[in-house]
Amino acid sequence: MINQEKTISRNIVYRGKILNLRVDKVEFPGGKRATREVIEHEPAVGIIPVTEDREVILVKQYRYAVSGPLLEIPAGIMEKGEEPSDSAIRELQEEIGYAPRQLREIGRFFTSPGFSNEILILFLAQDLFPSRLEQDEDEFIEVVRYPFSMLDSAFLNENIRDGKTFAALSWLIANPLN
Amino acid sequence: MINQEKTISRNIVYRGKILNLRVDKVEFPGGKRATREVIEHEPAVGIIPVTEDREVILVKQYRYAVSGPLLEIPAGIMEKGEEPSDSAIRELQEEIGYAPRQLREIGRFFTSPGFSNEILILFLAQDLFPSRLEQDEDEFIEVVRYPFSMLDSAFLNENIRDGKTFAALSWLIANPLN
Repeated sequence: MINQEKTISRNIVYRGKILNLRVDKVEFPGGKRATREVIEHEPAVGIIPVTEDREVILVKQYRYAVSGPLLEIPAGIMEKGEEPSDSAIRELQEEIGYAPRQLREIGRFFTSPGFSNEILILFLAQDLFPSRLEQDEDEFIEVVRYPFSMLDSAFLNENIRDGKTFAALSWLIANPLN
Repeated sequence: MINQEKTISRNIVYRGKILNLRVDKVEFPGGKRATREVIEHEPAVGIIPVTEDREVILVKQYRYAVSGPLLEIPAGIMEKGEEPSDSAIRELQEEIGYAPRQLREIGRFFTSPGFSNEILILFLAQDLFPSRLEQDEDEFIEVVRYPFSMLDSAFLNENIRDGKTFAALSWLIANPLN
């Protein structure tokens, strides 16, 4: 039996631009109480864009929270009223300048469920064609293409420091496209 | 060229039990300024424990932040003074009651670098032997064994809602052990 935790009180400590912080009191079966710190975050999408030349298109950008640049799959926060597939297509157009003729969801997961409710919906995008949308004005992104032949565990271990990208590229290695 | 963001001011808004919230002012090259919300979190470890019977041992537990139970690889926050491999061995003993004779790091990644500095160090654990440490008193964990033969993309898509576990099991599918 999986233990439920009953909410005794909820307290939003901070209401921000991309996240809220909530500090709740909870009660376990048996009566013991504890504090739970929760980051509320909008859902996000990530996309694995693959070309007919058997490349995956990644983006490199500075990530302030980790004080350095990261190589990642294109990704972003869903906007109000968007379906996940709409967000995926928009992010691809903004970040790499392509739209997909084929798009399918391959998984959805919580990025850090110990403290955050952020969910990431992961797509595979194929049959790409050029289509550009303006980037957000405070995004500075470099596009990097990798041939499938380079994608192996050694590549992941050396080059990938982003969790969703580690998951996405491991998935691509495990599911070779023909 | 990857854009750096220069810190103009740092402000810790909340100092908590498992996380701190910092709200910084930053400046882009060119002079434009913005706010960055950052969750500071200690590093964590995750472990893929595999048995000689070609099973992977997972744990099911209630995750308050996402309001439900999740099936995950054993994992936890590193304690002060611990090396990552020490944390991995401790978490295995606490969560599944085994210790490994073989342990190797297969990757390390940020779980949600858009807003958090949490890093997860991922290990493969083999050649397990029984060895029990007490669980943290507010952890309630169910151990679940899966044969390798069940691990495929359909399994991930249906059963795995945790990012590090999606990454870990994709890695295992991509790197079949002999």
